[in-house]
Amino acid sequence: MTDDDVVYIGNKPVMNYVLAVVTQFNNGASEVTIKARGRAISRAVDVAEVSRNRFLPNVEVKDIRISTEKIESDRGESNVSSMEILIG
Amino acid sequence: MTDDDVVYIGNKPVMNYVLAVVTQFNNGASEVTIKARGRAISRAVDVAEVSRNRFLPNVEVKDIRISTEKIESDRGESNVSSMEILIG
Repeated sequence: MTDDDVVYIGNKPVMNYVLAVVTQFNNGASEVTIKARGRAISRAVDVAEVSRNRFLPNVEVKDIRISTEKIESDRGESNVSSMEILIG
Repeated sequence: MTDDDVVYIGNKPVMNYVLAVVTQFNNGASEVTIKARGRAISRAVDVAEVSRNRFLPNVEVKDIRISTEKIESDRGESNVSSMEILIG
């Protein structure tokens, strides 16, 4: 899997990321990983669900992983949850 | 699995739900399901991660499922993403 097959979820509207996911599949990707951290995790689930239900009926959720990442900031180190959703 | 082994995530602080999860295991549950909808999904991942990393080192994430639920409201029907995290 190359980096091209990863969609990172930020603060933009859900449909922006859905478009990115659908574009990856249209460009020949067999699998796409949707990655998010912190509050964007809820949006990542929306992106996966909207992509599958509206645009990619033959695509399934293959794997979902959650983990904890350490983030360095001005106020020191803190933990943030992260999630990866593999669809294909 | 009985209803007692489910922790529903709402808008309270993460540690409230972590306490609920840890209590279930201390009361003899072998598995606990953490359920959330919409924006609470991010918090559900925090609850699973904090529970495992700080309090339940032998507990693993066994399954994560995402789905879409239809919600009836005054303004009609709308879709909301939901997630279930099974740990044990």
